[in-house]
Amino acid sequence: MALIAAAADEAQSERALDRLLVATRGGMDRVNAMILDRANSHVELVPEVARYLIDAGGKRLRPMLTVAAAALFGRADGSEVNFAAAVEFMHNATLLHDDVVDESAMRRGRAAARMRWGNQASVLVGDFLLGQAFMMMVETGNVEALGVISRAATVIAEGEVLQLAKARDLSATAEDYDEVIRAKTATLFEAATEVGAMAGGADAAGRRALRDYGRELGYAFQLVDDVLDYRGESGTLGKNTGDDLREGKMTLPIILALEVASPADRDAIIAALGHTDASEAQFRAVLSILNRLGTLARTVEQAHMHARRAREALRLLPPSEMKTLLGDIAEFTVSRAY
Amino acid sequence: MALIAAAADEAQSERALDRLLVATRGGMDRVNAMILDRANSHVELVPEVARYLIDAGGKRLRPMLTVAAAALFGRADGSEVNFAAAVEFMHNATLLHDDVVDESAMRRGRAAARMRWGNQASVLVGDFLLGQAFMMMVETGNVEALGVISRAATVIAEGEVLQLAKARDLSATAEDYDEVIRAKTATLFEAATEVGAMAGGADAAGRRALRDYGRELGYAFQLVDDVLDYRGESGTLGKNTGDDLREGKMTLPIILALEVASPADRDAIIAALGHTDASEAQFRAVLSILNRLGTLARTVEQAHMHARRAREALRLLPPSEMKTLLGDIAEFTVSRAY
Repeated sequence: MALIAAAADEAQSERALDRLLVATRGGMDRVNAMILDRANSHVELVPEVARYLIDAGGKRLRPMLTVAAAALFGRADGSEVNFAAAVEFMHNATLLHDDVVDESAMRRGRAAARMRWGNQASVLVGDFLLGQAFMMMVETGNVEALGVISRAATVIAEGEVLQLAKARDLSATAEDYDEVIRAKTATLFEAATEVGAMAGGADAAGRRALRDYGRELGYAFQLVDDVLDYRGESGTLGKNTGDDLREGKMTLPIILALEVASPADRDAIIAALGHTDASEAQFRAVLSILNRLGTLARTVEQAHMHARRAREALRLLPPSEMKTLLGDIAEFTVSRAY
Repeated sequence: MALIAAAADEAQSERALDRLLVATRGGMDRVNAMILDRANSHVELVPEVARYLIDAGGKRLRPMLTVAAAALFGRADGSEVNFAAAVEFMHNATLLHDDVVDESAMRRGRAAARMRWGNQASVLVGDFLLGQAFMMMVETGNVEALGVISRAATVIAEGEVLQLAKARDLSATAEDYDEVIRAKTATLFEAATEVGAMAGGADAAGRRALRDYGRELGYAFQLVDDVLDYRGESGTLGKNTGDDLREGKMTLPIILALEVASPADRDAIIAALGHTDASEAQFRAVLSILNRLGTLARTVEQAHMHARRAREALRLLPPSEMKTLLGDIAEFTVSRAY
């Protein structure tokens, strides 16, 4: 019985993304039109680079969450379309800059923009998208929402700098990791759902609930991403498995492993960590250490905990289909790990 | 008589910067305190990189113009301090990103931040400063000014991309150059003086006058900068003379020269243009071609024209010491060329 229920739950959460797509379709059609429109520029190279990244897709999870959060409160005034498009532009700007910072070759299953147009265009088109994101926010006249988004932009950059400072730092702790993903990932999810709630006419309690929900969802999302960087396939994840290891990123699976590793295991990890030329065999060796020490599984457990917290954050809101769906989305986020 | 008058004018315009320093001291003390405060972060690397650039100084001409523009209208409400600090942060963010884009070794007379902390930190701390700039704008609650600044952020990025797209493009025209410097430089000067006017309580005509003034001043400033890149000394300019040539930047002195150059002159220019390893002798050869063809002088003439237009933009405003000073600042901008 329990097994059947678990299987049903999993199927339910797997379908959650499809259900979110359907539930936000009307708003997202407008968001997608705005995204295409605002990626335009008379300077040809700008839309060329921006569209290359935008057309590669991605799930557009963040703007969907903004639209869903607005719908949850039933008094959406249309500003959620601008907010959602702005959130997606900020996300894409971050991706363009991250790829320069990480010297990544792949993004969303194909060559990163920087491999085609160089670091220069990636930096500048990222700046353009950031400017456009603020323009779309300004058009709504909502200064409070602008504050949420501006603060997010600052905190995300701080998180990325902290991650950079901690790269290859063998003394990095689980708390350091927590601080990095809180800033670089959870903050934008949190902003996406908070400004959505604001556009939907939420009161202070509703706004707080959606902020907490977004933050916890963001944590879960990043924890799973960091597991997939070891356990995913390049095709499905859209970036290269093993990138985090080769870039020396101190993600939770590595931090937990270094805490308990034998000297031999530790040596094997250090030999690959932060070495861009680490071989496939070295990566496989580290992966088998992480599996043996159970740190990937422990990282997924952490993600589960945050997903539960995300659902709990909504508990005081009145029951609705959208509320159930947002809870299911939290589980879907973790289901990607399997 | 005319000669003596000209000499007096030159001395007057040379002192204009000192007079602007004195006239804006009260406001600038608050601006500088805010700049120091907002460059702070618990992520240590952030203030380290930000302060390295900020402490190197620069004239802080843009924020001084914001403070001066606000004072001109006599009803400054304090928001000009936030606007001025935001403008300076945007400028510094642009410098950090530009140095990555241009692969520059020097900035403000010393090693560029990217040479000390790498491209990664320069990109991310630039993003941090942009986020903080918007935060400072948001705190004023002035959505219209936020619109001016957001639009500027977008246009500046477009200008930089256009400049990148036109690098080493021998068919680049004076109109292309005009478009590039309008976007990448004049836009921020224009925004700096326009939001200053807004903070000072200017009416629509006053705001338009200051916008026109800032734009024309920005043109003059960039034209002179582009002359100094050929004729300056590394020490005074704070960057390497000859950088534009080696980076293949199609600035007006080069564009005008290519229009009329003999085949031999043209070959000499092309041999150095966009070649990072062009020798000092090659640079000297190009410089002597530009001097012989008079294109540096013609570029300075263009700067003079824009400086005159800047002063004219203020003509409908009532006479005041600040108005005279702003007109003199336009001339000072061009006097740097000598």
